[in-house]
Amino acid sequence: MKPTEGRRRVVIEDVQPAVDAGRYPVKRIVGDRIAVTAAIFADGHDHLAARVLYRHASDRKWQSAPFTALPNDLWTASFPVDRIGPWRYTVEAWVDHLDTWASDLTKRLAAQAGGAQEIPLALRSGAALLDAAGSRAKGPDAKQLKRAAQELRKLAAANQAFYESPVPAEVLELAAQYPDLSFASTYATELPLWVDRERARFSTWYELFPRSASPEPGRHGTLQDVIPLLPEIAGNGFDVLYLPPIHPIGRSFRKGRNNSVAAEPGDVGSPWAIGAAEGGHTDILPELGTLADFSALVAAAQAHNLELALDIAFQCSPEHPWVKAHPEWFLHRPDGSIQYAENPPKKYQDIYPLNFESSNWRGLWDALYNVFEFWVDHGVRIFRVDNPHTKALPFWEWCIAEVHKLSPDVLFLAEAFTRPHVMYSLAKAGFTQSYTYFTWRTAKAELQQYFTEICNPPISDLFRPNVWPNTPDILHAQFQVPDLATRRAVFQQRVVLAATLSANYGLYGPAYELLEGRAAPPAPGREGSEEYLDSEKYQLRTWDRSNPISIAPLITQLNRIRYDNLALQTNEGLHFHAPENPQVLAYSKTTPDPIAGHPNTVLTIVNLDPLAEQTSFIDLDMDKLDLPWDAPFEVTDLLTGITYPWAPKRNYIALKPSAPAHVFRIVRK
Amino acid sequence: MKPTEGRRRVVIEDVQPAVDAGRYPVKRIVGDRIAVTAAIFADGHDHLAARVLYRHASDRKWQSAPFTALPNDLWTASFPVDRIGPWRYTVEAWVDHLDTWASDLTKRLAAQAGGAQEIPLALRSGAALLDAAGSRAKGPDAKQLKRAAQELRKLAAANQAFYESPVPAEVLELAAQYPDLSFASTYATELPLWVDRERARFSTWYELFPRSASPEPGRHGTLQDVIPLLPEIAGNGFDVLYLPPIHPIGRSFRKGRNNSVAAEPGDVGSPWAIGAAEGGHTDILPELGTLADFSALVAAAQAHNLELALDIAFQCSPEHPWVKAHPEWFLHRPDGSIQYAENPPKKYQDIYPLNFESSNWRGLWDALYNVFEFWVDHGVRIFRVDNPHTKALPFWEWCIAEVHKLSPDVLFLAEAFTRPHVMYSLAKAGFTQSYTYFTWRTAKAELQQYFTEICNPPISDLFRPNVWPNTPDILHAQFQVPDLATRRAVFQQRVVLAATLSANYGLYGPAYELLEGRAAPPAPGREGSEEYLDSEKYQLRTWDRSNPISIAPLITQLNRIRYDNLALQTNEGLHFHAPENPQVLAYSKTTPDPIAGHPNTVLTIVNLDPLAEQTSFIDLDMDKLDLPWDAPFEVTDLLTGITYPWAPKRNYIALKPSAPAHVFRIVRK
Repeated sequence: MKPTEGRRRVVIEDVQPAVDAGRYPVKRIVGDRIAVTAAIFADGHDHLAARVLYRHASDRKWQSAPFTALPNDLWTASFPVDRIGPWRYTVEAWVDHLDTWASDLTKRLAAQAGGAQEIPLALRSGAALLDAAGSRAKGPDAKQLKRAAQELRKLAAANQAFYESPVPAEVLELAAQYPDLSFASTYATELPLWVDRERARFSTWYELFPRSASPEPGRHGTLQDVIPLLPEIAGNGFDVLYLPPIHPIGRSFRKGRNNSVAAEPGDVGSPWAIGAAEGGHTDILPELGTLADFSALVAAAQAHNLELALDIAFQCSPEHPWVKAHPEWFLHRPDGSIQYAENPPKKYQDIYPLNFESSNWRGLWDALYNVFEFWVDHGVRIFRVDNPHTKALPFWEWCIAEVHKLSPDVLFLAEAFTRPHVMYSLAKAGFTQSYTYFTWRTAKAELQQYFTEICNPPISDLFRPNVWPNTPDILHAQFQVPDLATRRAVFQQRVVLAATLSANYGLYGPAYELLEGRAAPPAPGREGSEEYLDSEKYQLRTWDRSNPISIAPLITQLNRIRYDNLALQTNEGLHFHAPENPQVLAYSKTTPDPIAGHPNTVLTIVNLDPLAEQTSFIDLDMDKLDLPWDAPFEVTDLLTGITYPWAPKRNYIALKPSAPAHVFRIVRK
Repeated sequence: MKPTEGRRRVVIEDVQPAVDAGRYPVKRIVGDRIAVTAAIFADGHDHLAARVLYRHASDRKWQSAPFTALPNDLWTASFPVDRIGPWRYTVEAWVDHLDTWASDLTKRLAAQAGGAQEIPLALRSGAALLDAAGSRAKGPDAKQLKRAAQELRKLAAANQAFYESPVPAEVLELAAQYPDLSFASTYATELPLWVDRERARFSTWYELFPRSASPEPGRHGTLQDVIPLLPEIAGNGFDVLYLPPIHPIGRSFRKGRNNSVAAEPGDVGSPWAIGAAEGGHTDILPELGTLADFSALVAAAQAHNLELALDIAFQCSPEHPWVKAHPEWFLHRPDGSIQYAENPPKKYQDIYPLNFESSNWRGLWDALYNVFEFWVDHGVRIFRVDNPHTKALPFWEWCIAEVHKLSPDVLFLAEAFTRPHVMYSLAKAGFTQSYTYFTWRTAKAELQQYFTEICNPPISDLFRPNVWPNTPDILHAQFQVPDLATRRAVFQQRVVLAATLSANYGLYGPAYELLEGRAAPPAPGREGSEEYLDSEKYQLRTWDRSNPISIAPLITQLNRIRYDNLALQTNEGLHFHAPENPQVLAYSKTTPDPIAGHPNTVLTIVNLDPLAEQTSFIDLDMDKLDLPWDAPFEVTDLLTGITYPWAPKRNYIALKPSAPAHVFRIVRK
């Protein structure tokens, strides 16, 4: 069957950025310019023109920006996004007969020595095209174009032996504003784009257990106890304060200290075993306080420019109110009992997973959505979602979109440590940020490979890493070092990497700054453990924040460097340089143009060996530093304040474990 | 908005092969097995199952083949295509609760020493799943599954202290044939696939001008004159005989010998200036003969296993019948005259291009389609289309599909030498085979780069190269060598490359085998010319096929080697090996499994230097030769018949310009 209009001769292919050809939105930040590329071509040799059409989904009218041609039928355009929320963009392209004519005329004029007899005819063709543009224009533009057409006709009638350039460039430019779109092609897809607020790209997280926030050892900490800690946390440069679940904790099969199967009287249990007589996901553990306390904490945090992030873990203790009210949301065994979580032969009887194949899946989805809405109504705008990869992916796509309909400023962090396809699929479903494999990437080659993958398209269009050196679940073997100096070297090295490799990073404290490295004994048959000894997941802890071993000063310094250097607030400009020593990692970040007028470049060099000084020559890719290949320059170490004269291309560094990194700013004069 | 069914938990992504995510069909050959891969995953740890659904477009019912899991959530399946024409395929995947249960049961049984009390309950869960499978089955299968469920229940009731493997593997396999598809996910796209007959993949073309086929010098050759040449052409191993346009040739602005602007009386003109008083695209130039002669030629060719390929050039001389009948199909100038072809300041007044922006584009499309149908009705099944890139791409997509509706066996070769996007877009629009840049790829690196690009996905899924060392339009500078020995070396080298690099290749003869290297003088201001001197495009030529300088014997030998070696009949197995000498090119082709049970491997080594002997050590990639890395083997040079013992990995060759290639078959015992 013939198409409705067979004269749309232009083909538009491979519009980028696009996630799965437009199935999922590309992610960007408000204020960005979106750089779009496309392959645009047609039969023959006619000149083409194209524009990107874009709009916020709530606007009906498209805005447009022109494409310019690159070699090989590739074209580029860009447009700004000035509001958060959903956007759409697509591409329109057409044969530009006027431009073709003008280009041919130039050639005819250049060759008119050989006979100008064809030129008057060509001028008449051009007059017709200008007339047509005039008919599409309005007001003075229309008049000017019609007048230009008339002048061309007069010139043609004069039938001269020789012609000079007969059409002023401004007439052609004016006509180009009124293109003939009768046979314009439009890209088959309206590509979706999701625009987040700035914190989606650049955030610094601090996680703490309110249960351990009490200044009196042995007393259960409260939400109120967290308030006096806020000045220090904010002062250390964090802008997100993340709390593990704050809901009532189940009593049946409650886990004791160090994850023991039988809890002792007084054991506080795991905050992730959610639900008890006191309530479920929209209630607060009485020991932590009340909803009013929660609101007070939100307000106090805001006053310190700290946002509260809440942990949402969709699972239920056997006493969760949903278990009685909605038994159909759980899987039942042949004996009628509810199926607890298990990974045979291991059993997790304190937790009932939700059954996403429930006959009442609609009710379940609504209830889960309502949990988010409840906390949004109580001032929360950031959620850290626990194990989202064990909940149905179509649910997340729906739920996040629903939350975003009312509150496009809400951010979701996916706590999934699973296979790459599932990690990326959660990001496609709408998660703003994602935990990563950083925790287990310790060698130079694997760090380079991994960050190159996640900081470049196609992954960076959909997935925003939030890197954590530690979490309450993960104390990497690297940190489990009895020797204090070595341990401090590892903790320093890893926080430098996190803070400078990724624009989003977080720490679980005070375990981190106090260099907590004691691991729980391995499970039977396992070689090691990544669980903390005396983990706060199962008990209260008392932390001495004033302990002089604390590396809070370094962390504070790193966070200030991040705030002062736009290059560290995005992953776009990440590039790895080439130190000769395999124990030395070197990478730079440069602000992409859209963010800042004049470039800011930070070059970080890290000694990955906590045991010995490492020295290295480093081959710099001067282009990536936005520096000439032949001129010396200066670098200032932002950690020490010392400025060094550096040679182009090749330089030498030496880093001791005790001060394992240079964080250089390239000095621009 | 919630989806209709929120319990479809499985995600299916990136099903391959696919051209532009299913916008255009993937190309394959009848008898192929189509290997399909996909990323398939879901939340959680449940086991999944998947199948590829496929059907010929004319069938309503889907057939299916199971997927098997690869690492990292990738899956693979394959299906056979046993008919030419349009096919569709897609992927269906689901959570396999029975398989999850069986796997969990194995773990439970392994751990039952620690307490078997959970196993009876698990057996009852399994019984429910087997019962459900039984309900989906019919006849004896249903009975067997229900019986197995009953036995499980009996076993559970016995409440033993210890259980052995309670479900026979064959019961699980039987149940797997009746999967629960209630919540199965289906890939969003039904991917199109176009299946051609074998000649689309493997063909050997010979182009000649019937005007020069007369045995009497000076007499205009006829279609009848071609018939006596067929035994030799077929005997030389060609299977497609391609004729330049055979239609009436325009008289106004007719080009003279060597493309001179003014024809002399008696000049025969260019066959591409189509149309005269005698007719247009469905008529035959009287000097060549009649439609009856044409049919006789088609039949005679068939008798020699030669297919006739016709040249379709959609452009008109000023006397073409369409010019009067359909002036609206042409572009008019302001003075009412029809716009001839031009590239200012160059004019091609003997040719009127068709205007694909005609108001009567529908009529134009129909007329062009009818040209193909006319020749199909006269026995033609292969068309070589002249300059398809100057006709609207949507037209080709429609026209080729229309022809294929009635005649799916018709093959189209695109004669486009233009930018890559346009070349590939023509292939996407439906062209079976395409001319390539081979003619201008002469250095080792560029040959390797180009053939790697076009012989691998994604390009090889849509684009089939047909490589030509020469055409009537292109006598590459390489061939323009006065010295006979050097010229012969070049002609030999290039035909070896064409015949062994690409499963489809062609020659313009007898210019090729007779080593015609005389070029027309360059156009004013140009450095060189790729036009033949005394080109048959503008005059009759007489060729002495019995001239002893002919390299027809080598060509015949190469074509026989191609017929004898399945590896050379596809581009799938092409791999470049690593000779040290930059003037030596080495590559192997191995039959992919689907084509042959036991592998056939041809290793070709070519000296690219026509002036001097070149020697080289060659590092072989033994895997690509399907040979062990540590054992000596034998190669037989199919050009000389000599067998050599070769060492694994590294060998030495020496090639003189006079015999510039080894075409080795790997000897398998």
